[in-house]
Amino acid sequence: MSSLLDALAATVGPTQVLTDGDLASWEQDWRKRYRGKALAVVRPGTTDEVAAVVRACAAHGTALVPQGGNTGLVGGSVPDASGTQVLLSLTRLNRVRGLDAANLTVTVDAGCILQTVQETAAAAGLLFPLSLAAEGSCTVGGNLASNAGGTQVLRYGNARELCLGLEVVTAQGEVWDGLAGLRKDNTGYDLRDLFIGSEGTLGIITAATLKLYPAPAAVMTALASVPSMAEAVALLQLAQARLGPGLTGFEVMNGFSMSLVRKHFPQLRQPLPPAEWMVLLEQSDTEGEAHARHLFEGLLEAALEAGIITDAAVAESIEQSHAMWHLRESIPLAQAEEGLNIKHDIALPVSRIPAFVGETDERLASLWPGLRLVNFGHLGDGNLHYNVQAPEGHSAADFLRDHEHAINTVVYDAVGAHGGSFSAEHGIGALKRDELVRRKSPVALQLMRAVKRALDPAGLMNPGRLL
Amino acid sequence: MSSLLDALAATVGPTQVLTDGDLASWEQDWRKRYRGKALAVVRPGTTDEVAAVVRACAAHGTALVPQGGNTGLVGGSVPDASGTQVLLSLTRLNRVRGLDAANLTVTVDAGCILQTVQETAAAAGLLFPLSLAAEGSCTVGGNLASNAGGTQVLRYGNARELCLGLEVVTAQGEVWDGLAGLRKDNTGYDLRDLFIGSEGTLGIITAATLKLYPAPAAVMTALASVPSMAEAVALLQLAQARLGPGLTGFEVMNGFSMSLVRKHFPQLRQPLPPAEWMVLLEQSDTEGEAHARHLFEGLLEAALEAGIITDAAVAESIEQSHAMWHLRESIPLAQAEEGLNIKHDIALPVSRIPAFVGETDERLASLWPGLRLVNFGHLGDGNLHYNVQAPEGHSAADFLRDHEHAINTVVYDAVGAHGGSFSAEHGIGALKRDELVRRKSPVALQLMRAVKRALDPAGLMNPGRLL
Repeated sequence: MSSLLDALAATVGPTQVLTDGDLASWEQDWRKRYRGKALAVVRPGTTDEVAAVVRACAAHGTALVPQGGNTGLVGGSVPDASGTQVLLSLTRLNRVRGLDAANLTVTVDAGCILQTVQETAAAAGLLFPLSLAAEGSCTVGGNLASNAGGTQVLRYGNARELCLGLEVVTAQGEVWDGLAGLRKDNTGYDLRDLFIGSEGTLGIITAATLKLYPAPAAVMTALASVPSMAEAVALLQLAQARLGPGLTGFEVMNGFSMSLVRKHFPQLRQPLPPAEWMVLLEQSDTEGEAHARHLFEGLLEAALEAGIITDAAVAESIEQSHAMWHLRESIPLAQAEEGLNIKHDIALPVSRIPAFVGETDERLASLWPGLRLVNFGHLGDGNLHYNVQAPEGHSAADFLRDHEHAINTVVYDAVGAHGGSFSAEHGIGALKRDELVRRKSPVALQLMRAVKRALDPAGLMNPGRLL
Repeated sequence: MSSLLDALAATVGPTQVLTDGDLASWEQDWRKRYRGKALAVVRPGTTDEVAAVVRACAAHGTALVPQGGNTGLVGGSVPDASGTQVLLSLTRLNRVRGLDAANLTVTVDAGCILQTVQETAAAAGLLFPLSLAAEGSCTVGGNLASNAGGTQVLRYGNARELCLGLEVVTAQGEVWDGLAGLRKDNTGYDLRDLFIGSEGTLGIITAATLKLYPAPAAVMTALASVPSMAEAVALLQLAQARLGPGLTGFEVMNGFSMSLVRKHFPQLRQPLPPAEWMVLLEQSDTEGEAHARHLFEGLLEAALEAGIITDAAVAESIEQSHAMWHLRESIPLAQAEEGLNIKHDIALPVSRIPAFVGETDERLASLWPGLRLVNFGHLGDGNLHYNVQAPEGHSAADFLRDHEHAINTVVYDAVGAHGGSFSAEHGIGALKRDELVRRKSPVALQLMRAVKRALDPAGLMNPGRLL
């Protein structure tokens, strides 16, 4: 292998080929569920260097694992334990190539931090709406490779819908320049969307042209208590009808998830008393705060009168708005404080969510008495983080070891029965490969494998992930 | 071949296999530029019948040409002249399978007429926003196979962005059930978007789940005169900033295109005097007409004050609004009255359009004195129909015969130099295959051919189109 390492050092410079020392920040995933061993960590600085690295690895039959900010949740971007895979870190490709205000686009290297893109847009009075918990450290390349979701999908779509064009290094080490700032382009197969969401298994995304939007004049936030998931869905319908595209966020949280926040973060003020369910609504307005408030209060009054909600609080300031979002974002942390848990990142047709939750809550409670559900998520997108915590007083580690597989089966079977997906926004990676094979139709798997063989016949692009 | 015809008759019934009589409505395209000869026109009535037809053709090594409403503009859905291709008509698959109001989705067979989908949504108080001239006869399957655009892409995206899931018969005659009403689903490669826009060359779309939106409470239309394309772009930016997602249409028309409407349709009232350029704006509002009018008039006053527009008229009624759209939609008809012309369906970054138009107008005028430009289109999407009419008094047929190729070269070279696309919303079909090979990068072509070989190794799906 030393001839490969020499070739890599000659390509990117010897200081950018790491083989010694503590490589844990590249070899271990963020959740510390996967820890591998890389042949080397290689850090190219340009697209051409990425292409040269891919060609060198291809010539040596060596597999490549691309990695951005290493914030993925499914073990998709760390090497396996064999010590034979090259970890290709894209973080040195971090240039903003250019912003085009009249075209509402920005072109960036794949290694740009998401927050950098948001700030670049904001500095031009524009909005890049992709927003998620890891935005301070995740990269655009990773966001696109995993088709990231987040909190504003309801209005702006996933990472896929926010991307107009890509630059990709193919498995053969060639550069496809598909960067384009075009809203319409019907010249052949949609290669862009094939690479988006392919988790590094078809090629390496090195740059992207992304959509921007005019920044809203005002953003308002509210919390509302609802008696059941059915009313949460009714509130969503009412909000969509009254606010139209102004509704940019619609999050739901069950009472238990809020109680965990209360328990572990008692310093956080909760504007509403405990309730069965709570909804966080966000509205973005092009006119201004007075107009936004008028619309928002009208919506909440109508919902109160119709008996859909039982209580509501509208943020009176940016600080109050941030505090409401902070409550929502504290759920995963509160849950971690409570102990290990089983995460389910699922999507369902919105119309099926009340039935799914009712049936599945009941089935889990009957099979595992005392089991606790931390159910929250992006209801506007039909995306729930339907997480399972061990019964109070049980060892979380023992409970997971003994029951995780059976609980996953109950949850994913119910998801499938309601026409849903077992991976909404986190992807497949290494974590859900078995589920993919088990739950995707044979025809879909066959089509995917044909595409994989066609674009990566040697199977060197992120092997062991996704397919 | 009689054994294939027997097999087809056994599959779909003998009355649905047409070999005699006048088959022109299937064998000839809408623009009458392509006239082929089918081995047979086959009209399956179910997805399973489509799959059986594909398997029968595969067993006989016979090529298939899928067809919906046969309204395509690039010769993508009529058979070639060989008499060996089976024309697969999808129009009998015309069931609305179901509308889910809470999930804002509708699932329809591929042969449903676009207008039927619009009406189905409207009957539920909802909107299916795909809208284009052929909506009364084109089908959803064709819209998706060609990734159709239209007049509301600015706000709602192309057909691709309006589709959540597909049912497809593969080249092997298997059924992929990818129908899903999910906003988030990261379980493997994006097969949906691979089939969308593939023009029937990878498989046959038999059904789709489409996105719906709450119907707007008011829709308003205005015409404005602008001195140049630069001001048209400035007006677009102002309108996007002030109306945000309320801006649902932004069309531009040059003075000559409006003069052709005036000449050939003098009975149509033009609310504004002739101008160098005219813009048609459409606003959709979730609150109501008073609010919409307030916003719209504020925008136009600001634009007048800033010197961006020189004149404007806001429609005072639905009838006036329709009359404004009718003027815009009469351009292609007026142009046809004026004689044959060379159509260019191009897309550019919006920011590059003023420079492109300035340079290309001048270059064409210097090379072909007297040449007339009918330039109009969806400026909000960067999509121009930059059409060329022979100089006044010249034979249009002679002019096209002698100069079409050279004019295309000038136009498409300029489009490429400005980072644009030579096919924005009409696709490739048979018409632009040579341009695809000439203008797409070798890496992109190689990737597309690999995908084609992977999914249709026998090359029987709409051969001779796209690739």
